[in-house]
Parts: sequence; C-alpha cells; structure tokens
Amino acid sequence: MSKKDNTVSAALVIIGNEILSGRTQDANLNYLAKQLTSMGIQMSEVRAIRDDMDEIIDAVNSLRKRFDYVFTTGGIGPTHDDITCESIAKAFGRKYILNLEAKTILEEYYDGSSRELNEARLRMAYTPEGASLIENPVSRAPGFMVENVIVLAGIPAVMRAMFESLAPTLRTGKKVLSRSISVMTGEGDIARSLANIQKSWETVEIGSYPFVREGKYGTSLVLRGSDKVSLDGAYKNLLQAMEKIGVTPEINK
Amino acid sequence: MSKKDNTVSAALVIIGNEILSGRTQDANLNYLAKQLTSMGIQMSEVRAIRDDMDEIIDAVNSLRKRFDYVFTTGGIGPTHDDITCESIAKAFGRKYILNLEAKTILEEYYDGSSRELNEARLRMAYTPEGASLIENPVSRAPGFMVENVIVLAGIPAVMRAMFESLAPTLRTGKKVLSRSISVMTGEGDIARSLANIQKSWETVEIGSYPFVREGKYGTSLVLRGSDKVSLDGAYKNLLQAMEKIGVTPEINK
Repeated sequence: MSKKDNTVSAALVIIGNEILSGRTQDANLNYLAKQLTSMGIQMSEVRAIRDDMDEIIDAVNSLRKRFDYVFTTGGIGPTHDDITCESIAKAFGRKYILNLEAKTILEEYYDGSSRELNEARLRMAYTPEGASLIENPVSRAPGFMVENVIVLAGIPAVMRAMFESLAPTLRTGKKVLSRSISVMTGEGDIARSLANIQKSWETVEIGSYPFVREGKYGTSLVLRGSDKVSLDGAYKNLLQAMEKIGVTPEINK
Repeated sequence: MSKKDNTVSAALVIIGNEILSGRTQDANLNYLAKQLTSMGIQMSEVRAIRDDMDEIIDAVNSLRKRFDYVFTTGGIGPTHDDITCESIAKAFGRKYILNLEAKTILEEYYDGSSRELNEARLRMAYTPEGASLIENPVSRAPGFMVENVIVLAGIPAVMRAMFESLAPTLRTGKKVLSRSISVMTGEGDIARSLANIQKSWETVEIGSYPFVREGKYGTSLVLRGSDKVSLDGAYKNLLQAMEKIGVTPEINK
C-alpha cells in the first residue's frame, strides 16, 4: 500500500508486563503517534505484549513485513527481564553480539562516574549483528535499528530523546492535513449528514467523536486527508450541512 | 495454557483512528488491565487498530482463539465510522441483526427525551445474531458479548460502566499477589542479585523498573505470583540480597 499511494506506515510494539498488569500507564503510544503523524508517517497498528521472547519475535516478524517501520519500546535495560535486544536478533536470525561502538559509549559514560560498568550494564552494549545505533543523550545506553525495526527505551524521557535523535533520518510521506469542529449536538442527530459527506469525499477520513460537556452531548468532528483541495471541499460541505440542520459549529485549532 | 494452570487470560482490541493518530490518548487499556489483574484475569496482549473492517476481523479472529476473553473498545456509536458491531458479526460468520431487546432499551430511553430515535441511533441496536447484551447505565445503548468476545464503548466513562455491569459474570482465575520495594540504586548495581533470585523462584515474576528521583537513579522492584509461599520466599531473599549489598529498601504499598 505504502508504495502505491506515497504514504509511509509504522507499527509500534510496546513490550512490558508492567503495562499489561496496569502497574504502569503507557505514555509512548500517544507521543509517537503524534510525532509520526506530524511527519507524514501513519501509525497503523500498535501491540502491547509481555516480556516473552516468542511473543516479541512473533509480533516483530509479523509487523515488519506489513509496515515501513516497526518501533519497539521497553526491555533494553541491564536486568534479567530485559530481553528485547536478544529477541530482535532472533527475529532476524542474526547473532546477538557485543557492539563495540556501544561499548565505547558506555565506557566513556561510566568512566569517572560513581557507578561501575559491570557485566549487567555491559549487557546494554549488546545488539543484533549489523545494527546501527541510535543516540541516547539522556542515559547514553543506545537504542538501535535493524533493517526497518527501531528499538527504543521504555522510559518516556529516554524514548523521546532517542526518537529525536533518529527522526531526521526517517523516510516521510505526504503529510496528513486536518480540520476539526465541535458541535453541541449528539452524534445521532448529525450521523446522516456525515455519512453523506463521507460518501462524496472518499479520500477524506471523517471521524466523529462524542463528548459530554456540562451535562450536554456534543460531537467533535475531524476531517483528515493529504489532498488539500478535497479536504477543503469536504470541510465546506460539512459547514453547510451543519448550517442546514441549524447547528452552530465551534472551529477547533 | 489457561486450562492447565488455572489462569484466565484476556486480550484487548482498541479500535479507532483517533488513538493511532495521537488525537486521543487511550485511557481504557490501563483501567481494564488493573481491573482484570485484581480479578485474577491476566491481560496478555493488547492491539490498537484502525477503523477498518478487515483489520477488526483479523485481530478478533486471531485473538479469540488464543485467549479466554477478548475485549474490544470503540466504534459502537451511531455514525458511519462506527463499524465494530458489523465487523464482529462478520468475524463470527453471524448475521448482523436488529436486536429487539436493545431496540426496546433505546425506545424507552429516547421516549420523552428531546432527542429522536432516528435511523442513525437505531444502528446502536444492531448486534451479531445471538449476542447477549451488556447493560450501559450511562447512555443506555448496550455493549454485547458473542462467545468469548466482549464489545464495549470507547468513551471511558461508558466503557467503565459497561465493564462494571459485566464483571460479576466473568470467569476468574487464581489471583496474582504482589510485593514491591523501591531502592535508590541503579538497575545495573542490583541486576546480578535479581537474576539469581529469579533463577531460584521460577514461579515468581520479578520486574525491575528504573526511575529518576531528584536527579538520582532508583529502581522499583515488583514481585508477582499466585503462590503465596513462593512469593514470600522470593521477597525474603530479595530483602536479604539488598541488605547484603548495602541497599536500604522502601516498602511500596
């Protein structure tokens, strides 16, 4: 699909029992979704899975064939439950090796610090063979990329720093533009108009999101598309349709 | 797996373009994860996918074979982009029909209200044939269950109310117990001790989660398991190991 219509697609694999037990609230999905969307990369699927080697391998191997990029977050620290790097090596059938560039980064970081570059911390310098490193300006232990799979930390501050290091190198697609209005009317009263507009403008995605404000039902309407002419056309139609049924829209920024 | 070891497993499918574009931050994963964990149901996988019929069908059909329960959130409103119910019907090869019980609920709700039970709103009374309804005390339009697939609203307040209606009817497994401590020591300095404890107590899951507090590295350690004797044994070992390396733990509630 991505070849044909000039979009670039991505998937995300969130790795960690703590997300699935509810102990930790994931903050990476929303950040990555926003960043990628703004760059013209379409986040198309997200999976959250347990710290389990077979599950990581299955998820990564299934998604890397279907999407242009696959991001993973979590499981790249120094402890026994950090098994992402080894799992990625297995997913690609590559050796899991001590990356000398990563080792040098860690040596320079721990040299002169009160903390020791022991065997556990040195685990963070292991990557699949042939991986390219992603800089980590926060805590130095790098992320890495193998083919189209991008391995990032789970701690949000570290993940974001890694993503910022990486972002300029990513291939981007046509940017998705959007227009949004809110109306203080229930979805059910505007559903028919929306369906008609959606039929007329197939390349524009019209999303309808209900909300409650001061005890009254309202709906946010979001139009998204990469063709500005169609987007403007659909938006004009939407405003006309709302006027026709006597609804006053608020324009959202 | 669930048959053998008395656990009950669940997966969640979050349906909605707005989650994947970053416009909306999902709040349902964390709520359901916590609720299910506390009931002895293990959330094992989560997927977030687009409002696309084929993707919904694929995700539901793949997960319902692997897990005891599959929850879905989102896409059950009255507008053109609400395609979850029809997709679930297709996933099961069942007819998508007007559910007379759901129709009665909506008729009673809209009767005497300022809003009309029009064709769009009546869509919310359609379910796969043979579905059993899940009560929605907030906005009445029900969720439903087909075999082991449970279809809930996307709006968090409505999803929670539906889940509360449903929860007493779910089959539950052995509850997972947990103990947690925090230490103001980097993961790398305790990784070896942790790996040894993990080896000694295979039925206890030991998770290690780094954090930064006032510029210093710390680690939260979480022990989880359904066998209290093993859990207490591993916990005792952990406290001894921390004492041995001169680390003072804070006990987490």
